[in-house]
Amino acid sequence: MSILIKNGTVVNEDGMHKEDVLINDGIIVAVGKNLDAPENCRVVDATGKLVMPGGIDPHTHMQLPFMGEVAVDDFYSGTRAALAGGTTMVCCDYALSMAITTWNDKIRDEMTEVTKPEYGINSFKFFLAYSGMFMVRDEEFYQGMMHCSKIGALARVHAENGSVIAEKAKALLAQGVTGPEGHTQSRPEELEAEATNRACVMASQANCPLYVVHVMSKGAARAISYHRSKGAIIFGEPIAAGLGTDGHHYYDKDWLHAARYVMSPPLSRDKSTPEALMDLLAAGELHLTATDNCTFNCHQKELGRSDFTKIPNGVNGVEDRMAVVWHKGVNAGKIDPMRFVQITSSTAAKIFNLYPRKGRIAVGSDADIVIWNPTDMKIISKNTHHHACDFNIFEGMEVRGFAETTISRGKVVWENNELHVEAGAGKFIPAEPFCPYVFSSVPQRAKMMAPRMVVREHERVAEITMNQEIRAQNQEMST
Amino acid sequence: MSILIKNGTVVNEDGMHKEDVLINDGIIVAVGKNLDAPENCRVVDATGKLVMPGGIDPHTHMQLPFMGEVAVDDFYSGTRAALAGGTTMVCCDYALSMAITTWNDKIRDEMTEVTKPEYGINSFKFFLAYSGMFMVRDEEFYQGMMHCSKIGALARVHAENGSVIAEKAKALLAQGVTGPEGHTQSRPEELEAEATNRACVMASQANCPLYVVHVMSKGAARAISYHRSKGAIIFGEPIAAGLGTDGHHYYDKDWLHAARYVMSPPLSRDKSTPEALMDLLAAGELHLTATDNCTFNCHQKELGRSDFTKIPNGVNGVEDRMAVVWHKGVNAGKIDPMRFVQITSSTAAKIFNLYPRKGRIAVGSDADIVIWNPTDMKIISKNTHHHACDFNIFEGMEVRGFAETTISRGKVVWENNELHVEAGAGKFIPAEPFCPYVFSSVPQRAKMMAPRMVVREHERVAEITMNQEIRAQNQEMST
Amino acid sequence: MSILIKNGTVVNEDGMHKEDVLINDGIIVAVGKNLDAPENCRVVDATGKLVMPGGIDPHTHMQLPFMGEVAVDDFYSGTRAALAGGTTMVCCDYALSMAITTWNDKIRDEMTEVTKPEYGINSFKFFLAYSGMFMVRDEEFYQGMMHCSKIGALARVHAENGSVIAEKAKALLAQGVTGPEGHTQSRPEELEAEATNRACVMASQANCPLYVVHVMSKGAARAISYHRSKGAIIFGEPIAAGLGTDGHHYYDKDWLHAARYVMSPPLSRDKSTPEALMDLLAAGELHLTATDNCTFNCHQKELGRSDFTKIPNGVNGVEDRMAVVWHKGVNAGKIDPMRFVQITSSTAAKIFNLYPRKGRIAVGSDADIVIWNPTDMKIISKNTHHHACDFNIFEGMEVRGFAETTISRGKVVWENNELHVEAGAGKFIPAEPFCPYVFSSVPQRAKMMAPRMVVREHERVAEITMNQEIRAQNQEMST
Amino acid sequence: MSILIKNGTVVNEDGMHKEDVLINDGIIVAVGKNLDAPENCRVVDATGKLVMPGGIDPHTHMQLPFMGEVAVDDFYSGTRAALAGGTTMVCCDYALSMAITTWNDKIRDEMTEVTKPEYGINSFKFFLAYSGMFMVRDEEFYQGMMHCSKIGALARVHAENGSVIAEKAKALLAQGVTGPEGHTQSRPEELEAEATNRACVMASQANCPLYVVHVMSKGAARAISYHRSKGAIIFGEPIAAGLGTDGHHYYDKDWLHAARYVMSPPLSRDKSTPEALMDLLAAGELHLTATDNCTFNCHQKELGRSDFTKIPNGVNGVEDRMAVVWHKGVNAGKIDPMRFVQITSSTAAKIFNLYPRKGRIAVGSDADIVIWNPTDMKIISKNTHHHACDFNIFEGMEVRGFAETTISRGKVVWENNELHVEAGAGKFIPAEPFCPYVFSSVPQRAKMMAPRMVVREHERVAEITMNQEIRAQNQEMST
Repeated sequence: MSILIKNGTVVNEDGMHKEDVLINDGIIVAVGKNLDAPENCRVVDATGKLVMPGGIDPHTHMQLPFMGEVAVDDFYSGTRAALAGGTTMVCCDYALSMAITTWNDKIRDEMTEVTKPEYGINSFKFFLAYSGMFMVRDEEFYQGMMHCSKIGALARVHAENGSVIAEKAKALLAQGVTGPEGHTQSRPEELEAEATNRACVMASQANCPLYVVHVMSKGAARAISYHRSKGAIIFGEPIAAGLGTDGHHYYDKDWLHAARYVMSPPLSRDKSTPEALMDLLAAGELHLTATDNCTFNCHQKELGRSDFTKIPNGVNGVEDRMAVVWHKGVNAGKIDPMRFVQITSSTAAKIFNLYPRKGRIAVGSDADIVIWNPTDMKIISKNTHHHACDFNIFEGMEVRGFAETTISRGKVVWENNELHVEAGAGKFIPAEPFCPYVFSSVPQRAKMMAPRMVVREHERVAEITMNQEIRAQNQEMST
Repeated sequence: MSILIKNGTVVNEDGMHKEDVLINDGIIVAVGKNLDAPENCRVVDATGKLVMPGGIDPHTHMQLPFMGEVAVDDFYSGTRAALAGGTTMVCCDYALSMAITTWNDKIRDEMTEVTKPEYGINSFKFFLAYSGMFMVRDEEFYQGMMHCSKIGALARVHAENGSVIAEKAKALLAQGVTGPEGHTQSRPEELEAEATNRACVMASQANCPLYVVHVMSKGAARAISYHRSKGAIIFGEPIAAGLGTDGHHYYDKDWLHAARYVMSPPLSRDKSTPEALMDLLAAGELHLTATDNCTFNCHQKELGRSDFTKIPNGVNGVEDRMAVVWHKGVNAGKIDPMRFVQITSSTAAKIFNLYPRKGRIAVGSDADIVIWNPTDMKIISKNTHHHACDFNIFEGMEVRGFAETTISRGKVVWENNELHVEAGAGKFIPAEPFCPYVFSSVPQRAKMMAPRMVVREHERVAEITMNQEIRAQNQEMST
Repeated sequence: MSILIKNGTVVNEDGMHKEDVLINDGIIVAVGKNLDAPENCRVVDATGKLVMPGGIDPHTHMQLPFMGEVAVDDFYSGTRAALAGGTTMVCCDYALSMAITTWNDKIRDEMTEVTKPEYGINSFKFFLAYSGMFMVRDEEFYQGMMHCSKIGALARVHAENGSVIAEKAKALLAQGVTGPEGHTQSRPEELEAEATNRACVMASQANCPLYVVHVMSKGAARAISYHRSKGAIIFGEPIAAGLGTDGHHYYDKDWLHAARYVMSPPLSRDKSTPEALMDLLAAGELHLTATDNCTFNCHQKELGRSDFTKIPNGVNGVEDRMAVVWHKGVNAGKIDPMRFVQITSSTAAKIFNLYPRKGRIAVGSDADIVIWNPTDMKIISKNTHHHACDFNIFEGMEVRGFAETTISRGKVVWENNELHVEAGAGKFIPAEPFCPYVFSSVPQRAKMMAPRMVVREHERVAEITMNQEIRAQNQEMST
Repeated sequence: MSILIKNGTVVNEDGMHKEDVLINDGIIVAVGKNLDAPENCRVVDATGKLVMPGGIDPHTHMQLPFMGEVAVDDFYSGTRAALAGGTTMVCCDYALSMAITTWNDKIRDEMTEVTKPEYGINSFKFFLAYSGMFMVRDEEFYQGMMHCSKIGALARVHAENGSVIAEKAKALLAQGVTGPEGHTQSRPEELEAEATNRACVMASQANCPLYVVHVMSKGAARAISYHRSKGAIIFGEPIAAGLGTDGHHYYDKDWLHAARYVMSPPLSRDKSTPEALMDLLAAGELHLTATDNCTFNCHQKELGRSDFTKIPNGVNGVEDRMAVVWHKGVNAGKIDPMRFVQITSSTAAKIFNLYPRKGRIAVGSDADIVIWNPTDMKIISKNTHHHACDFNIFEGMEVRGFAETTISRGKVVWENNELHVEAGAGKFIPAEPFCPYVFSSVPQRAKMMAPRMVVREHERVAEITMNQEIRAQNQEMST
């Protein structure tokens, strides 16, 4: 079955043009002016609309067991919500990333194994937070990244100083601070900035590309930007929650309201942070958007009623990300639709080695498409969202611009405010290691960082030209 | 006549793949695996080579009358040199930019006129240096940028504090410093950084996208990066000279050698600057490379023998830029071939509204192509270059990687170290205003910056929501 | 007549100790434990109080003719207010600074003249704002600073980009924005940061110490801090208004309320600015506090009722500075009493070459002393202040800590909420040039920055060792 | 016995004046013009000389057992060297600091104990380097600083990322890099910057003043400066070695020469670092100078002949610090003599609670005085120094300005190039906790940072005004 999208404006990261798009058998087969519809082809009119690559959300947790509970959005409800918001990957289609929570030879070998094509995992996540649970020590993290670099896998990091957080949480509880405000007080944002800086330095030393998940504060963003300017390969991911709201909720008088926003790192209490993060996305100092979608319901959040450290961490986002980013980015004059496509779809596809199959409207690409209504308003609400969750952190936000129609691998799955999906239709997309977008310059860097030996006392020919530049000082490392 | 490029690796800014490229009638007609050659088609073997969009040099001065002399590379010799280096625009093909050296109503109206399609100029250059010659005052520059924003033209700026430079040059001559070292001493690099910062602030206030030509110092780059992170639309252009060499030459004991390097802003005497500029190109804080190519011969440089302020300013670059950027970027492990294409071609095409006709290997694009040899060495020298100039500032530099074959609008113009060109073959490419890559978010920004009026004392309906964010503070401006 | 202050804690910038202070004939004659009172000596009990050097406010405008009006606080009422707040200089005692609003040989000679001891002026102020009124061009400012450096006078600068401000004000009025909100909208704070950066660069180039008056924004402070870290001699002066309140007042619905806050540069609308400026005072990146006290009454402010550019610029501060700085600094835990003394008194005395005669509790120093109550509260109000002005920008602010008793040259002039002063008692204190605190390293710097000549072609012995460090680039080594 | 120093210029941190100084019984008893010599008083003529407080070196290691060896300078030879260079404390007189290398309740109690007056220790040092030896984990360091804050002791930190260093050292040795160049390659300076940043963040969170020993790189200094500007109480100590030379020595072809410079953190290989550190001392972003003096002889260094990790770490400095700082600071035009006194003596005295007994020429202060010859040259050499060490890292450096005469507690101990000392004459100076210079604002900060509880659901009175400023986020307001 084929579909012809007529009269819309096709937006890719590098251009926007009035063109039609013809889809056949799940694949885009033509993009051009005035395309004719073949027989038996459904025609979708997109007059006044933008035709964009479906969103890719590279950071979600569906049905995650965490802190004794399981996130309520499973793969089915979570991906339904995604589609209703214009996101077509992690999703009908999905790829996987894996967490590394300790370090030994067995784990090293398993990492090597799962990067093989049959497993298709090309990224690993490390935690510098969650002391006593997921947290790795610096030497473990460093060795893990050394290995990532070797097997062509991207290292991802949750960056907060877990050691200090644990101490602060204990102290707060001892002082009687048990409510959700204790969550944010135990995780001052300079602890995120510190761990982010540390991760960037260690990645640079390990010659390993690094992806920082959920950049929530200006300080963390500043660390990323600084180390990039010194030559490190780093990607920074702000999320819908951090772009769309802030941490004043933790002080809400309604305990449950406050608890709903508990996530880590917490939302920034600096009200200018969301706008600052969007400015950095505009400037190219942050790179793509995700959600860390991990939803818990009322009764799950209640588990932390008398102890904030027991509130399951996580919020929604996968459905609303596209609209929130459009509203805070395009409507605010900070980014244009091309950059919107880049930070919601194309860059994610590139980083995880799925481009241009995903992330681009082009002949040969998968027909994952969102038809965007840029002019009408909608109000985000738990009453209308498609999550299994009984709350929405963006409740009441009026946004201009939303996903009117979503097409997943050539099938219209969302239109007229209705979903047309079936469970299990999503496809696993293996992600190959040594992604060119991420790793192309890594071998050459390794050569530049190789150790330099001074040959002394007639034993060998002297090799003494020292590179006096500071950068080289940091890069004399082993291959 | 058609050409089929076989067995190469096609490199675009967003991917690199082993594919063949078929050209017909000056246009790329197919890109794909295992293409068959039509009849009468010349087949070019590119095994082991990279097939990339021809370079675009957005900043050259051919046959420029300047300081009483005329640059020796005219459009013919200058573009021959370009082609021999793999650069296909300003070039066989060219577009024009115009300088605004004072401000009045007549000039304003002329600017409006030349942005019409029949003139095809979509950028204007302002000088904050050359006091008494080209320099504009702050109010002129600001009004000029207000007008640029209105007519959809990009403002470009030569940023140095001309007032202080003039005083310093006078003082140095009075103290007997007459040689080329006086050139660099009269132009300390913090004067470039200062003017760059000033230009960025004024552009932001004028809601006008800004393009900073020849970013020569870390301080200037720092200013650009800072204001971008605060939301301004700014592009920074380092040049081949600044990436490939440094300012120690001004202290050469051979007067003529030193004088050969006189250009403004001068080459940095901080030896770590070239590498730092490349790091910023890698990080996306600087955006594209050019040359400011403006060549003068020995006897012209001699005019300043007893007074450094009379040495004609300018150096070569248009031929060697691609090789220098490859060597200092790709070979150093700082960038990969995709980013190389972006900073030597695609971004220039986008900024000047010529993309994807220029700057991309894709069906429908002009067949401006360079076939790049990434493995062999060559030595840059005045003895082998194609400039009309009797000197080369990169003399003796060994570079690995160079343009082996150049195709300009479907014609092989450079191969086997020979040029096959005819004078006058280049085409003027008009550049339309309101380039989407540059201007898409400008109207929305204008709305956000519109003045806010407080209505008082029952006279009007109150509009008092004050935007407390600092950014808005800087952006409450008229539409 | 002598006075013995008993049982207090004497605070100097470098220590605080329980000691008594004996005063005779206007001079401090003893500081020590358990001093005995001579005959006929008044004993003042200071138990629980701090005994500190009287405040010095280095930036006030008494009876200033400005914008067609004259500031209502004349030298008598203004200095009364100062004493009631614990400030003893500009004041009973005063020194003068002079503004340079254009540049020519006559002015240069006059500057030289007034720095002679009989005139006692050792600082000159330049304006980069007030286009068409006081504003100087860059070349004038630079030449002025070159001359300051030569005659040992400190250059002071009001830093805002007057050219852009003039354009913005015109545009706003044309668009109907006539109220005080137009004042702040026409003076975005990045225009202050820009001019501050420019002034720092030019001062560094002129080898002239620079004093930036009224640092009102983070951006301006950032510029000062940056250039200091690169070696420039710069002092930054935030003022009471900028430390104690912010720019939300400009959007007040009551026109007169808003107009009362009109001053230049305007108060920052970024609510975190006051705290940030205090942090920088704490860190030593800003250096001393003043007020720019320049008071206008209701009917004077009304002159700008239909055009914000006609509202006389200026606010109060000289009376409340000490209490505001204490409250926002010491009570907030940012600074301690020793740093308080430094930023309200000692550093000003040092910069203007009056130390230790002023600015220190020590034997031989003038007996200008404030006895500070650090524990009780007071509420700032126009009803209780001693200004001639009918408004107070700090109205209603509750502060803990205030001047309980003020002693000016050995006379108790303020106690029990009453002033005991007589008009004309203040003394002119001539300020000598070449202040050691400011100028001690300037001659050595001049040697390091002397022009450097390359000797070529057998004429002289070559001297070619180039200093590659970037700083040297700006400060040429002497031959 | 008394001494009268005539005709010199007395320099204190806040002024310099031609005055005489009279000493009696180890104490300064008079400072003034034209003092008369009492009977039996030795008169020292200081015409043309500067009379300054004796240097205080707050970071030395005498007879330290380290890496299996004992530093060759014991307290006797080390303090002799100090006196010959004009340094009078750690020294004839000395105070002690203590290292904390793990954390438990016993150590906590011992810390409390030794801060009592009879032990007189008011600072503790933590190591983030030397993994497996001295290194503490983040949670240990944080708890240690919490305790320091409580007992009024200053925390000091050796900041390098020991975990990564250990991995890098292993890898380098495995690759055959065994020479001293491996020392610097295993300790890239961004690992110092990272740990410094981490230490600053944790200190700020612990409300504990922090003293960073041996700031060796720009990155470490940048971290200190940044966190100070955000309100943290941090002191940065560059050392003589880092101000006077750089890391090119590690690549010397002579193994022993290279090994002599092995210390941690290593000397920077960025040649512009020494000058940059001095600029930051001038700007007040770094605060005092020390040496980390820890000397090993040839045969001790030889222990690492085949493995750089076995080279005992340490260099000289205590004798030459004053001359090196003068030369690189005052002679370079970066600082004046008053700032010289501050960074070599007064600030150290203040930080360790010894001021004004030490660190000032004033009546009542200890007569620790250096008479400085600012005009003559001397050449630093192992042949003339007074260390027990057979090498001098400043060998051959010509300096203008040196200690001509040194007086220690009223006794002339160095004059005419001769020492007049006796072993054991030095006095232990207990250092009291809660030093006002360091701790005055700490209790108030603690109040501002106290946890903040939201009262919910009618249980208590709601207190919900959230402080939105980012700083408050880290420093919760007390209820």
